[in-house]
This record gives sequence, structure tokens and C-alpha cells, in this order.
Amino acid sequence: MGANVLILMGSKSDAEVMAEASRVLDALGIPFTTTVSSAHRSPGRTQKLVREAEKKGYSVIIAGAGMAAHLAGVVAAETVLPVIGVPLASSPLSGLDSLLSTAQMPGGVPVATMAIGKAGAQNAAYLAAQILALSDAKLRKKLVERRREMAKTVAETAKEIR
Amino acid sequence: MGANVLILMGSKSDAEVMAEASRVLDALGIPFTTTVSSAHRSPGRTQKLVREAEKKGYSVIIAGAGMAAHLAGVVAAETVLPVIGVPLASSPLSGLDSLLSTAQMPGGVPVATMAIGKAGAQNAAYLAAQILALSDAKLRKKLVERRREMAKTVAETAKEIR
Amino acid sequence: MGANVLILMGSKSDAEVMAEASRVLDALGIPFTTTVSSAHRSPGRTQKLVREAEKKGYSVIIAGAGMAAHLAGVVAAETVLPVIGVPLASSPLSGLDSLLSTAQMPGGVPVATMAIGKAGAQNAAYLAAQILALSDAKLRKKLVERRREMAKTVAETAKEIR
Amino acid sequence: MGANVLILMGSKSDAEVMAEASRVLDALGIPFTTTVSSAHRSPGRTQKLVREAEKKGYSVIIAGAGMAAHLAGVVAAETVLPVIGVPLASSPLSGLDSLLSTAQMPGGVPVATMAIGKAGAQNAAYLAAQILALSDAKLRKKLVERRREMAKTVAETAKEIR
Amino acid sequence: MGANVLILMGSKSDAEVMAEASRVLDALGIPFTTTVSSAHRSPGRTQKLVREAEKKGYSVIIAGAGMAAHLAGVVAAETVLPVIGVPLASSPLSGLDSLLSTAQMPGGVPVATMAIGKAGAQNAAYLAAQILALSDAKLRKKLVERRREMAKTVAETAKEIR
Amino acid sequence: MGANVLILMGSKSDAEVMAEASRVLDALGIPFTTTVSSAHRSPGRTQKLVREAEKKGYSVIIAGAGMAAHLAGVVAAETVLPVIGVPLASSPLSGLDSLLSTAQMPGGVPVATMAIGKAGAQNAAYLAAQILALSDAKLRKKLVERRREMAKTVAETAKEIR
Amino acid sequence: MGANVLILMGSKSDAEVMAEASRVLDALGIPFTTTVSSAHRSPGRTQKLVREAEKKGYSVIIAGAGMAAHLAGVVAAETVLPVIGVPLASSPLSGLDSLLSTAQMPGGVPVATMAIGKAGAQNAAYLAAQILALSDAKLRKKLVERRREMAKTVAETAKEIR
Amino acid sequence: MGANVLILMGSKSDAEVMAEASRVLDALGIPFTTTVSSAHRSPGRTQKLVREAEKKGYSVIIAGAGMAAHLAGVVAAETVLPVIGVPLASSPLSGLDSLLSTAQMPGGVPVATMAIGKAGAQNAAYLAAQILALSDAKLRKKLVERRREMAKTVAETAKEIR
Repeated sequence: MGANVLILMGSKSDAEVMAEASRVLDALGIPFTTTVSSAHRSPGRTQKLVREAEKKGYSVIIAGAGMAAHLAGVVAAETVLPVIGVPLASSPLSGLDSLLSTAQMPGGVPVATMAIGKAGAQNAAYLAAQILALSDAKLRKKLVERRREMAKTVAETAKEIR
Repeated sequence: MGANVLILMGSKSDAEVMAEASRVLDALGIPFTTTVSSAHRSPGRTQKLVREAEKKGYSVIIAGAGMAAHLAGVVAAETVLPVIGVPLASSPLSGLDSLLSTAQMPGGVPVATMAIGKAGAQNAAYLAAQILALSDAKLRKKLVERRREMAKTVAETAKEIR
Repeated sequence: MGANVLILMGSKSDAEVMAEASRVLDALGIPFTTTVSSAHRSPGRTQKLVREAEKKGYSVIIAGAGMAAHLAGVVAAETVLPVIGVPLASSPLSGLDSLLSTAQMPGGVPVATMAIGKAGAQNAAYLAAQILALSDAKLRKKLVERRREMAKTVAETAKEIR
Repeated sequence: MGANVLILMGSKSDAEVMAEASRVLDALGIPFTTTVSSAHRSPGRTQKLVREAEKKGYSVIIAGAGMAAHLAGVVAAETVLPVIGVPLASSPLSGLDSLLSTAQMPGGVPVATMAIGKAGAQNAAYLAAQILALSDAKLRKKLVERRREMAKTVAETAKEIR
Repeated sequence: MGANVLILMGSKSDAEVMAEASRVLDALGIPFTTTVSSAHRSPGRTQKLVREAEKKGYSVIIAGAGMAAHLAGVVAAETVLPVIGVPLASSPLSGLDSLLSTAQMPGGVPVATMAIGKAGAQNAAYLAAQILALSDAKLRKKLVERRREMAKTVAETAKEIR
Repeated sequence: MGANVLILMGSKSDAEVMAEASRVLDALGIPFTTTVSSAHRSPGRTQKLVREAEKKGYSVIIAGAGMAAHLAGVVAAETVLPVIGVPLASSPLSGLDSLLSTAQMPGGVPVATMAIGKAGAQNAAYLAAQILALSDAKLRKKLVERRREMAKTVAETAKEIR
Repeated sequence: MGANVLILMGSKSDAEVMAEASRVLDALGIPFTTTVSSAHRSPGRTQKLVREAEKKGYSVIIAGAGMAAHLAGVVAAETVLPVIGVPLASSPLSGLDSLLSTAQMPGGVPVATMAIGKAGAQNAAYLAAQILALSDAKLRKKLVERRREMAKTVAETAKEIR
Repeated sequence: MGANVLILMGSKSDAEVMAEASRVLDALGIPFTTTVSSAHRSPGRTQKLVREAEKKGYSVIIAGAGMAAHLAGVVAAETVLPVIGVPLASSPLSGLDSLLSTAQMPGGVPVATMAIGKAGAQNAAYLAAQILALSDAKLRKKLVERRREMAKTVAETAKEIR
């Protein structure tokens, strides 16, 4: 079977943060492809990647970008697949610019916006998994299990703190 | 068949804005239920609604709230269903507070954050539809058709402007 | 001769503000075309308009948009013509979102960003005129004359105030 | 006698900042318990801790959290004990997100919001002490004494500066 | 018995918003006094009011102010009674200025900061009541009852929405 | 003759930044005193210092403080001497909190607000000097001379850049 | 004797707000001149006005401007007279733009920045008066008297509130 | 032939960031001059440089400045040449101050505002080149070629990521 999730990032310098998404998808056993394409420096490539993703049967696209983060919006404009946007803190404005550029989409073309940076990249993967789990009971079980582990980890951490 | 989308809002005063979501779901023929529950004033009810939604087979939960908008996050903490958050501009800070309260979720518990206000409510419905369309080819066609209409409307609007 | 300036706006509701640009271009005798196209709702139309503008010999493109204002950036990604972006205050965030979405472009693809709203629309036209005036001595004279008039108007206004 | 103050924090990484609260409570001789629980990763545990705190006779709950800091609000929704929220600067937005998420509570469910970070953690402890001092004359004296010392320290510091 | 809560506001124009606090205290049967005093225009009066409040046995002081809202901080500097600050949206910055001026207190002198405006004024009264309820079981019952009513109201509201 | 300028700072940790003010006053030969006093931790001392300053014939008071920077406002409330406020970037909000707390004073009690941090501390001294120079022709000459030097330094710097 | 204070404003539309400054100066019996000049539309006029003000013996210059409010800074660059800047809320950003443009001056060229809008315009006049009062004992008495009246007004207002 | 582009910066400390503009112009073979002049510390020099630039036939002026970045606006007020402003992040506010000071120009005097910092400096050069390319087909080809290379680089980067 092919990949389910396409991870796009606007620049090579986004790779370290976006690797948080890959790690979560890997841990959940969800096949994915990661690549780089810019909304502004390679608009043709971006368009082509989205169209190919649709043809190859990808289900969800994750797009991480910084500054005037147009990538997720531009991708969303080309597809009706769910698009998840991760704003990155790559400018002096600490990601406020990319958060607003990603979240404030006009009516008709949604981008599922995550938190700025690493937490957002992780959650992009979790949201993708939650979407895929709607038709994959095994994955849903894994997600429920993960939540239980998270809660357990919190409880264990609590012991160390005291 | 039961409803697919549960629309929650934190307060009755959010109803006018959240009606944008209902209108889009109606237009797309997606069954949904709308109700009111507050993360802070009725936490028990909120929890109960989420658990019932899971049992009744809802697929997506949309949560609209203003100010320190915890509703979507609190809902997301109780389920692995995709949760879509709509920040509402109900305080003097024009929704910046609710946008940050909705989007800046910690790793592990995603909320798909939309734009502040009406555009965000519309897009919550579109994103829900895009998620449901992954396993509903007919709905997907409707969405593709809608995009075509949007583009056509833009082109027609252009004529009026000149 | 054909038009020199293409004015794009993301939505019909932007027309009133963007009319400030038309008025300035008209007053300076600069031919222009105004149309509507959205970065998100009509990406194909936007791309086509930019390519046609290049072929038809337009010199400058002005793009006005609100919210996550991607229009100017998306246009700039498709051309090496100078692109002037006007952020519009169409969301509850009063244009802070559109200002950051327009100004914070990554290296390689500039957008000449103006002030939010009517002042920005006027200045988009003035900047377009200043660019065209580099190879049009008559237009340059008009601009110099305008500045003189502005200063004169200020001085006259001062008399009323006292 | 049991503890008077329950200190909750959303994550182990908050421990260093929240230790400022413990230090102040220790210095004032106020018994307290510190633990970790997340509004999102361990909602059940959070709810249980609040209910136990009520039963065990705790008087005040301090909750420190970063990002979309829902912890204090979620705790406040479960109790009528005074809840003090400490916004932490754990995201690229430097705590503006957690400040707004903590302070902008809707009518009916208050959170006593402190400054972002260490000063806020210290003040959470001082406010807890001021609340307890309403029925503890000895503690009140200690607080008055502390203020005198603060003023004295300022005056002594002044000598070093000259 | 004398009043328990002193409500201060910086200016007569704050009266309408601060009346939200009075209404809640009235409904809960908590005696209070309301007066006006400015941190800047009547510093002597403010100081005197705080000292008298201490002598007369007030338990909690609520201070509402706009702009560079120093009132709550200045009051807190003069007492170890719990001080609750309500930031008011009386400047063009919509209360962001008063929120930061109220919340960002240095270590040692806490102000329990509420939301901007009416919700904050209501919650100031609720927090005062929660503090007083620590030594007043009857008041505590009232507060628990109020929460139940809030939850019930939410549930009833939900029926109207459908 | 006694000192002309009193420099107050809210905390010892502000000393390094506020030393920029001292350096400028020294260079201009203006007598000054520097001391520490907090609006919140030592309100009595602050009040006393302002009253003494008036009696001792000080002409200008400079007050530097961070976070909810009430110091300059509190000083201004006690005197009709010109008060210059320097907002310091000592919290995670980088001085936005102290800038708004210093600048947004209500009508009747002005604080001459400077830039955040070192540039602001320097300018506090320059503004104090400009005020004193209104009745000190020699000082005025020095200030004019300084401006000339600044312009010359800029011109010399320009040579190094090329 | 000639005027002591020159009030500049960037545009006729600023007249209503800046009239607050005139009213205060009038009430204090301080001679002043009001005029309009823009930093950008009439830079020559602005420069000339500043130079004339110096020659005619003006003591203080007040400059009110909105948006990218350069007026006060540009005036300050041309004189060593004290320059007071009033940021005006004339753009969709509610004066945050003009506040930062006025306050964040580089080291060497101070602008005494006031609050945004009417309170700031009033305070510009009060600060000018405080500066002039350094060498005018009668004016100083008036200012002290005004403060007493302000405090009295606050106390009287308090009676109405109860 | 003489230079086409004048690069101004407000301070020597801006040189490293503004060198990004020089590098791009060098790579495109566009003659330019770089110098330092401050809007505030050397207003006369700034005015003189702009007038000389006009006489010497410069086509575009790039102005980089931080804090209350008035340089680009002040330059724009003196010429009808296109002026490109680069906001620099030299204050604790990370360039938000300089972005607003540069972009929010009033109607009539445009500044083509770029992103904050290095990306903005690069784009200032690209925009200058795009303007010059309107009458220089060879330069236009170079720009088109550059865009192709950018896209190619993105595609190559993508291979490294996988």
C-alpha cells in the first residue's frame, strides 16, 4: 500500500522541527512521504506535488512553513483533502506571523492549524492519525492506547517531582 | 443513519456565528447536531456529550468558543475523534485570546484550529466534510464541485467590479 | 497602448477600499485594469491572470487582500514584475493578520507591502506610478507636482485649524 | 494538619519555574503538596486531584501551565476553591498565549492570574498566603514582616548602587 | 457586621462595568462598599482607603482600572489583604494595556488578575466570594449551588439552540 | 549646588541598563543622584524620595522599571516635576508590558515615556538635559554640539561601511 | 510675550483629539500656537516650523500624529527643545503603530511619548506645563492646585457612585 | 554608467543584515552604493544624500532601519523615486516596532515595505532589480533564471531531506 500522509515543508531549515511529525507517524505505523516545496520559490512543484498526492491516494497533507506561511493555504487551495498547517517560528516575530498566515484562511478553504513549532508538528501527525483512524479501527486503538500512556507518563512524572 | 458532526458552542451568544457551520453542513447534506456546553460552566455536561458522541458514532466534533477558549481543548482531551476549534471574537481582544487558547495546544492532543469568527465557522464545516469525504466519494465530488462554483463566483464577481 | 497596472483583489468586499488605488491612478492618467481573484478560491484564475498580465505587457501588479492575505505572495511567486501588496482589515484582527501575511515574505520573492486599508491602497497606486515614472519623465513631473500640492494643502489646512 | 495549598503543573518541564512557589510557601511555613497533571494529557487525573483536594481540605490550588494554558481554568471549573493560575513562557510566544489562556476566563469561573514565569510563581504563593492569612493572624504577621523586609532590602540595595 | 469587600475603581466611567461585580456580591449576600479613587489623580485618597479598609476589617479589595492600570498594584503595595484586579478596556488598545499593567506584577506583591471588562468584574466578585467561603460554609454552599445553576442554564440554553 | 536629576530604578537588576542614563548625564556635566526604590516593594520609600527630591530642588525625575512598570506613574502621581519613564525589558514579554504600563497614563498625570531598554535610558538623560537647557544656555550649546558630533560620527561610520 | 508651546499635528483630522492639549494649555494660561504639518507630505514646512519655533523662543513642541507617526521624531531630529509626541489612533491598528513609531526612538534623539489619543493630548499639555513651571513658580502653583482639584473631583465622584 | 541603487542604513550595526541586499545586487550585476545615515542623528545628511541620489540618476533607494524606523519614510518624503524599506529587529520588540513604523505610511508617500531582517534585505534587492528590469530585458532574464534556480534548489533540497 502507498503512503497515507504527505509532509511538505517550505525549506530545508524546517526539517528538524518537522521531524517531530515523522517520529509520531512512524511510532503509529502510518506510512508517509516527506518532501520540500515552497509556496513562493517553487509554486509549480508545490502544485504538482499536491496533484500527484491526490492521484497516489494520499489522505492527508501536512504543510509546515514559517514567516508569511502561505504553504498550507496554497496547498489547501488545490485540493479537498484535509490540509494540516504547522506554523514555524523562523522569523524574529517568533511564529506570530506564521500562525496568523496559516490560521486566518477565508471561508471555503480550511487549513487545520496547529501550534507554533515542535508541539504543532507532533500534533499535525496526531491529527492526521485521528482522521485516518475514522476508517481504521486498529489505528484508533493505538491512539486510545497512546492517550492512556500519556496519562500514565504524567502520573509517573508526578512522582519524580515530589 | 445518525449524525456525523457534533457542533458544540460555549455559550448561546455564539449561536449566530456558529450557524455558519450549520449552513455549510446543510448545504453539503451532512447530518449534524448542534448543542451548547461550556468547558467551565458545565464541565460534566461537556464530558458527557463527548462520550455520547463517541458511542453514537459521530465522526468529527466542532467546538466554537471565545475568550480563554478552552472548549475545543477540553473536548480534544476526552476523545481521539478529530476536534475542530473555532475561536470567537467575543472579548475586547477581538479573538486573539481565543485564537491562542485554541491553537497553542501541547503535543499529543491536537485541535484543528480555524480562523476567528464566521470564516472559521464555515471552514470548520468544510474541514469536517473533507475528513468525511475520505470515505465518501459522493461527498468528495460535492466538495470538488463547490470549489469549482467558488472559482466561478469569483470570476462572475470580477465582471461586476469592472 | 494597453494598461500598465493590474489591480487584483481577493473578494468583492474589498472593492470599496481598493477604489482608492483606482482613483489615484486615474488622477495620474495611468491606464489600469481592476479584477477580482482569490489566492484560495480561484488559484487557477489567479495564475492565469498573472501570466496574461505578463504577456499583455503590464508593468506592475497591485494585490489587495485581507485575513491570511496570500494573494500578493502567490502572485509574486508567478512573476518577476513588481508586486505591491495592500493588507486589508477584513477580519476581527484589524489587518494585523493581513499585514504580517503580506510583509513577511521569504527571501527571493518580494512583495512591496503598503499600510493596512485605504492609505495603503492609495500608496499602492503612488508606488506603481513612481516605478512607471522611472521611464516616463512626464509622469515623474506629475508626481513631483502632486507632492507640491500635498504640501500646499497641508499649509492651507493649517490656516483653518488656527 | 494536612496541606493547605495544592500546586499543580502541566508538565515536568514546568518544575523549575514552579519551584519559586514552593520556596515562598516553605519560607512562610505553609504546608503544600506539589504534583503534575495535564489538562489535556491526563484530564481524568486532573479532575480526581481537584476532588481529592477538596475532600482533604486544601484551601487554595495553584496551577502553572504554558502554551494554551487550560490547566487553571479546567481546575477552576471543578471547584469553588480559589484557583491561582501561573502562565508559563514555554512556547515561542513567550507566554502571551498562556497569559491570555489563563486570564480571559468567562464570567462565573474565576482564575486569579499571576505574571508570566518566575515572578508569577512567587506571587501565586504570596496570594495563597494572603488568602490563608485572612483566618490566620500569625501568618498575616509574617506577611507584614516580609513586606517590611522587602522594603528594607530595597533600601540596602540602593546603597550598593550608588 | 461591616462590609467584607471593598470595590475601588479608577474613574466614574468605570462604574457601569464594575457594577457587574456589585450585582454578583449582592446576589450572594456579601456586604461590600464601592468607591472611586485613582492611583494617579488621588494617590493619597487611595492609600487612605486601603488603610481604613484594613482597620475596618475588610477581607478583600477589588480594583478596576483601565489604560496603564496601576490601581490594583498600588493598592496591593499597601496591604497584605488579597487584591483582585479587573483590567478595563477604556483605551484604544482594548484593554491589552490594562491587562499587562495589572497582571505583570513583580515577585512579592501579587494582584489576582481577572479577564478584561465585564466578565472580569463578575469574576472578581466570584473570586472574592470563594476566598470568603473558605471560612463561611453557608457561602460555600451558595457558590456550589450557583455552579449547579450555571450548568443547568447551559443545558436549558442548549434546548433553545436546537 | 545640589543635583538636578534623580534617577530611580525599581530593582538592582535594572542598574546596568540605567547606567546608560548616568553616562549621558556625566558627559553633559549634569549633577544627578541614582537610587533604587520599588513602586510595589517599597511604596513608602518611593513617596519619601519624591518629596525629598522636591524639597532638595531636583528638577527632573527619571524612573526605570520593568514588567507592570508602575514606578514612573506612581512617582508622577506625587509631584508636578517632569517625570521621565524608561520601560525595561525584564519579563518574557520583552518590554511590551512595561512600555504600555509606562505610556498609557490617564489624563492629568503625564509620564514622558522613552524607548524600551538602553536607548530609552540614554534618551531619558538627553530629555532631562533638554529640559534643563531651557534655562541654561551653556548646556543648550553642549546639546547642540552633541548633535553635531552625532551627525559627524554617522558620516565617519559611513566611510567604514563602504 | 510670544507663545511658549508649539502644537503640531500631522493632519487636519487630528484636530479634534489635539484640541484636548489646547484646552489644558488655555486653562493654565500658557500661550501656544497650533498648526498642521506632515512629516511626509510637507517635510520642508515641518523643518521650517521647527527652526522658526527655535528663533521665536518657543520652549516646548508637541507633535501629534497617527499611523507610522514620524512627526515627533522628525521634529526632535531638528531641535534640542523638548519634543512631546502624542500617538493617535487613526489606523485600524488602534494606535499601536503610532505608539511604537513615537516611543521607540534611537539613543540621542528623545521624544517624550504620551498615551494614545485624548488622554495623551491632555498629558502633552500638562508635561509642557510642568517643564515651563521649572522656571515659573506661579505656573507651578497652578499645577499643584490642579492636582488638588483632581483629587477633590475624584472624592466627589465617589459620592455619586455609592 | 553610475550606480542604480542607493542602500542607506540608519546605523553601522545594521551593516551585517543589509549586506544581504548588497550580495543579491552584486550577483545580479546591478551597480549600487551603500552608506550610513540616520533619520534622527543626521537628518541633514539624509536629505542631502537623497537629493544627490536624484541628481546622480539613481533609480531606487533601499533604506534599512530598526526601532522607530523613520528612515525609509523620511527618505520617501524627499523624493518620488521608489523607496524600499527594510525593518530591522534591533530592539527588544523583535522588529514589530520597525515593521509598523515602516509600513504604516500615510496616503501620498509610499514605502515598499519588506520582511523584518535578512529576508527583507534580500528582497529589497530583488524588488529593486524587478523595478529596474522593467526597462532592462537582460536583467529580467537574469531574474527569471534566478527563479528557476530557486525552484531547482528546492527540488534538490528535497532529495536530501528524504
